Amino acid sequence: MQQFEDDTLTLHNDLYQINMAETYWHDGIHERKAVFDLYFRSMPFNSGYAVFNGLKRAIEYIKNFKFSESDIEYLKSIGYQEDFLAYLQELKFTGNIRSMQEGELCFGNEPLMRVEAPLIQAQLIETMLLNIVNFHTLIATKASRIRQVANDDVLMEFGTRRAQEADAAVWGARAAYIGGFNSTSNVRSGKLFDIPVSGTHAHAMVQTYGDEYIAFKKYAERHKDCVFLVDTFHTLKSGVPNAIKVAKELGDQINFVGIRLDSGDIAYLSKEARRMLDEAGFTDAKIIVSNDLDEQTITSLKSQGAKVDSWGVGTKLITGYDQPALGAVYKLVAIEDADGNYVDRIKLSNNAEKVTTPGKKNVYRIINKKTNKAEGDYITLSHEDPNAESPLKLFHPVHTYKMKFIKSFVAKDLHHDIFENGKLVYDVPTEREAQLYLKDCLSHLWEENKRYLNPQEYPVDLSTACWENKHKRIFEVAEHVKEMEEENE
Amino acid sequence: MQQFEDDTLTLHNDLYQINMAETYWHDGIHERKAVFDLYFRSMPFNSGYAVFNGLKRAIEYIKNFKFSESDIEYLKSIGYQEDFLAYLQELKFTGNIRSMQEGELCFGNEPLMRVEAPLIQAQLIETMLLNIVNFHTLIATKASRIRQVANDDVLMEFGTRRAQEADAAVWGARAAYIGGFNSTSNVRSGKLFDIPVSGTHAHAMVQTYGDEYIAFKKYAERHKDCVFLVDTFHTLKSGVPNAIKVAKELGDQINFVGIRLDSGDIAYLSKEARRMLDEAGFTDAKIIVSNDLDEQTITSLKSQGAKVDSWGVGTKLITGYDQPALGAVYKLVAIEDADGNYVDRIKLSNNAEKVTTPGKKNVYRIINKKTNKAEGDYITLSHEDPNAESPLKLFHPVHTYKMKFIKSFVAKDLHHDIFENGKLVYDVPTEREAQLYLKDCLSHLWEENKRYLNPQEYPVDLSTACWENKHKRIFEVAEHVKEMEEENE
Repeated sequence: MQQFEDDTLTLHNDLYQINMAETYWHDGIHERKAVFDLYFRSMPFNSGYAVFNGLKRAIEYIKNFKFSESDIEYLKSIGYQEDFLAYLQELKFTGNIRSMQEGELCFGNEPLMRVEAPLIQAQLIETMLLNIVNFHTLIATKASRIRQVANDDVLMEFGTRRAQEADAAVWGARAAYIGGFNSTSNVRSGKLFDIPVSGTHAHAMVQTYGDEYIAFKKYAERHKDCVFLVDTFHTLKSGVPNAIKVAKELGDQINFVGIRLDSGDIAYLSKEARRMLDEAGFTDAKIIVSNDLDEQTITSLKSQGAKVDSWGVGTKLITGYDQPALGAVYKLVAIEDADGNYVDRIKLSNNAEKVTTPGKKNVYRIINKKTNKAEGDYITLSHEDPNAESPLKLFHPVHTYKMKFIKSFVAKDLHHDIFENGKLVYDVPTEREAQLYLKDCLSHLWEENKRYLNPQEYPVDLSTACWENKHKRIFEVAEHVKEMEEENE
Repeated sequence: MQQFEDDTLTLHNDLYQINMAETYWHDGIHERKAVFDLYFRSMPFNSGYAVFNGLKRAIEYIKNFKFSESDIEYLKSIGYQEDFLAYLQELKFTGNIRSMQEGELCFGNEPLMRVEAPLIQAQLIETMLLNIVNFHTLIATKASRIRQVANDDVLMEFGTRRAQEADAAVWGARAAYIGGFNSTSNVRSGKLFDIPVSGTHAHAMVQTYGDEYIAFKKYAERHKDCVFLVDTFHTLKSGVPNAIKVAKELGDQINFVGIRLDSGDIAYLSKEARRMLDEAGFTDAKIIVSNDLDEQTITSLKSQGAKVDSWGVGTKLITGYDQPALGAVYKLVAIEDADGNYVDRIKLSNNAEKVTTPGKKNVYRIINKKTNKAEGDYITLSHEDPNAESPLKLFHPVHTYKMKFIKSFVAKDLHHDIFENGKLVYDVPTEREAQLYLKDCLSHLWEENKRYLNPQEYPVDLSTACWENKHKRIFEVAEHVKEMEEENE
């Protein structure tokens, strides 16, 4: 049904990227090296922290970056000229990428990834990198927030049917796992990423048999581990009693894991179901709940003493429901001039938060050696070495009077080399390793930054040199605008 | 990097579907015919109507439904037994699907699609069908709402970077086009679906040259049609004057389409920019705006007299920001018994709106012949013919006193045959045809149902036979629950 067979993600681009690429190519500046930062400005979900994710997918994309024949044909059909297309057709990624690793804690206004590549290449990978990082980071962050309030309860990702198409379902399930979930219901995601899958049966099975008792028994005939869904007809009058009846009858023939509640008042029903299960002797049987859960509802249910062992979280997680987009951007911060020297670049804006921070930069996490906790993140120009400074001056980039000096610290470089001259130089950790890495990172964050409502703001500071450089560029541009204005009068 | 190849969407399934399939197969009832309805309960965005979408994608999925060798291998690795897997490996879809066409108006609690197939097949396609229809319908609906308030202005879909991964970007762009948008920025979507693409340049190009005047001229050297982005440094002092300067200098060498504003107060800036363009003689130059737009902000900006010709809509559209998931479900309504006769099935719930409507059904739109407007949708049991009735009694399925009789009407069957015995029997319209079909459908809807805030509720009624059947089943189940309860006491 689709016109073209060789569908590539290389064409997964905003049209203006191709137009800019053509402009640079025509002007002969397309191979000048440029530096772009990928970052978001404000914290998703008003969270105290976010969880970087999407690198594995980004690496696959970059490795396979190449326009196909049909891509080129299509571009020709919409008016691009052959000389430019001949160049595009041969293009591969030959630059450098530094990035945070998956599971890293990240915050507003710090570079998650830094791309240093020929201008035309750096420009053409923007759209897809943002498309990836925005979604993966959003979901990993949401999952981690839910993990914070669930403590050690089992968390299962159940969102596929409400996910925004298929990619969101499988990659979202992966992000949820890295964010701290135990499993996903999506079998394809389990296959692709080697993460645990879970699920038993739906209402349809009970409806098929028309009778819960029979349905549960039929399920148990073929499946050793049994979780029975008890709300098809009436949870307490029919569902729970039938689950107990089957569990008693079958005894050791099955492993009666427990029951699942999917509607009604979970606090009330879980307490009643717990009582019924306990009275029947099934004190080890688990109560699993689902139905529009997120960090707010789980906290509320727990505060009411709901007897829940395991939470199935769908819609609110897989879509990042209360803020379904992370606003990460990708901004030019430096570019080579005709002599091959980097010149810093800035973008101003009527919206103050949209002003960029110019220059090729690194980002460090400042860990206090005494407390082993993170004091803040620290963005430097690339030639600076914060570990050589003592004390290190940390100050708020807007409210500069907020200042502290730290003596005993380690500055941890948050970026890893991923691609060097187009070559992949990074071993991608497994999903389980990324999950454990996040857990370790969180242990170095103060509880005040982890609170799911109204957390303490985590400092993201600029080095003095970086801060001074930014303000120098702001004044330069202001001068330039003034000149323009006078000239145009 | 991956253990298994990502070679099918057939495994894109919730694990419980596989477990239920195995139960049915083991019990020997897997090939009994079952009927499932796919529908949502409440209107997305509190909209007066929704726009069905996703059929093209669903058809591709069903046509290619087949577990791959690596799917089977994976299922074996997580514990499924070979006898069952041998059956799964040969499985194809052999059933019937009836569905609304893309661009059809749809409403809560009416079947968008009806699947009638061997139980095991119908069960195994649920997850992916929901994953598709939920997202595609959500975005087509959002796009149509924006089209309603934009009147004849140009609408461009700009959301790829904020979309929830790649599938959401391309299919979302398609849904937006069908919903009434003029174009997308996503080049891949343009290629795959033959829809118009649009876009010129970003801030990065101005930053690259460090000077707007030079940047605009460089762009114009290679591109005849020019839209200049004017807010990299200062919109009114620098951006607009430089755009005018370049347009004057180059005269007929370019087609000065207009300028784009991407930050600041759009109402104020657009009026000032309009004045400046007009004074310079560019009265035909268009003003294009972007920056977190949706039906609310567009309405508000228009009410303040903003001078905007063209709207670039990103995040809020491509994610369905204010309600990022449509809650469509897929429910068993009838199944063959051992003798091959259909038995209706119902699901009750503590949540009243979750009670299903049993029976194999059709859905009709009742068009009043005098006004040529839709009076409501009318759900019947499959043997009924509403066109044979006169007058037709329409009544609210909950508040039954709300009743009307209609004499002069046409009842239009909203379902088309898509698959018959597994064979595709439907010609998929082009995206442009679907867009035009929606436009025509909207012309038969009262303005009161189309209002974007607090619309009049559109009636979705059950035929008398369908309503009576539902209540009969409810009482039957209640009886059954009572018996269970007594037995368990």
